[in-house]
Amino acid sequence: MGARALAFDVFGTVVDWRSSVIAELEAFGKSHGVEQDWATFADNWRKGYLPAMDRVRRGELPWTRIDDLHRMILEELLRDAGITEVSDADVDRLNRAWHRLDPWPDTVEGLTRLKERFVITTLSNGNVSLLTNMAKRAGLPWDCVISAELFRHYKPDPEAYLGCADLLGVRPDELMLVAAHPGDLRAAQHVGLMAAYVARPLEYGPNQRAHQVTDGEFDVTATDFLDLADQLGV
Amino acid sequence: MGARALAFDVFGTVVDWRSSVIAELEAFGKSHGVEQDWATFADNWRKGYLPAMDRVRRGELPWTRIDDLHRMILEELLRDAGITEVSDADVDRLNRAWHRLDPWPDTVEGLTRLKERFVITTLSNGNVSLLTNMAKRAGLPWDCVISAELFRHYKPDPEAYLGCADLLGVRPDELMLVAAHPGDLRAAQHVGLMAAYVARPLEYGPNQRAHQVTDGEFDVTATDFLDLADQLGV
Repeated sequence: MGARALAFDVFGTVVDWRSSVIAELEAFGKSHGVEQDWATFADNWRKGYLPAMDRVRRGELPWTRIDDLHRMILEELLRDAGITEVSDADVDRLNRAWHRLDPWPDTVEGLTRLKERFVITTLSNGNVSLLTNMAKRAGLPWDCVISAELFRHYKPDPEAYLGCADLLGVRPDELMLVAAHPGDLRAAQHVGLMAAYVARPLEYGPNQRAHQVTDGEFDVTATDFLDLADQLGV
Repeated sequence: MGARALAFDVFGTVVDWRSSVIAELEAFGKSHGVEQDWATFADNWRKGYLPAMDRVRRGELPWTRIDDLHRMILEELLRDAGITEVSDADVDRLNRAWHRLDPWPDTVEGLTRLKERFVITTLSNGNVSLLTNMAKRAGLPWDCVISAELFRHYKPDPEAYLGCADLLGVRPDELMLVAAHPGDLRAAQHVGLMAAYVARPLEYGPNQRAHQVTDGEFDVTATDFLDLADQLGV
């Protein structure tokens, strides 16, 4: 294994965005006296993010950070649900739920072990302040915080993967992307990075179909970050 | 005090570059069988950095990271000293002395206290990999690593200070620069940041004249990071 640094996808790979956002939405609903299927609301909020990001990637929108994309989608979902009597400050507070996501149970221990051997960084489409606030709250021990925002290119654009290696001062083949999403990993491999797939079967809730991954497609396939640390000999 | 985040100058403010670089040069001299006044060599290495950076700031050089500026200066100093029989790998290893600087005695304890209340980041002209490697080795507990490299503008260009606030998602007047250099602090104040001066009388070696600072010129004037934490009520 020639990896010197590990770059982690964050939403779904490091943190359980779905449970965290549902809990925030439920609390919001209670304090505002509104009832909804908040799980579906959370799923729609997340679903809105890919097409919004793709509009940025295609150049239809100027560079827009995730906080602002999340906010656009949230306002539309609230409007569609007829929830209109909410102050701007409360919408903003709810929007920042994405800064307060909880890690998976193995995350902190796994990262702490991996940090002994490797430089560990985020490589997320989340903006720097979101990632920084999340890490501070959840105790994620990053060596540094790298975001698509720094390159103004969202993953899976090559600029994000290559820019990360460049900032870390390593060659692309010395950088391993760790992610729960095969598409992210394949895009990283396409520009020369190593790739570690970590299964997160509960990312989208219970009873989901697993991602299709071919045997030997990635340098490592792990069940969680502790298994990843074991396999990397840490 | 309205500060939500603290951005730290690094060379001289957080780490004792001079003692660290002299020690690395002495070790290099021993292993290569060369004698020199290594303290003067270290001072000249550091002195070369300002004019080199200014050439970048004026646009005479394209964007060049500090690692590469340090390397240009080092090669010139070695040549001037008649030290020519050194492999490229050894010059590179010596050049990366700037990734291995030791913190001042109060640094880690002070940062750890300040981190409880504030988001703490680097805001240095050092490149991201230099700052990341330094933090990992020295145990500097940054919430994130921000560098002039991200803006392709060296301090004291306004883009560096304002870009830092923007990445952190705070207003300029919610960000406090912490530095041992009045010029850096004044440039930050000029674009709306708060400023904390920390005296580092040994930065350039013993028996130096202290920086001239006017009473009340900065929001805080502290003797070290523990005093800064005390004054910020942490």
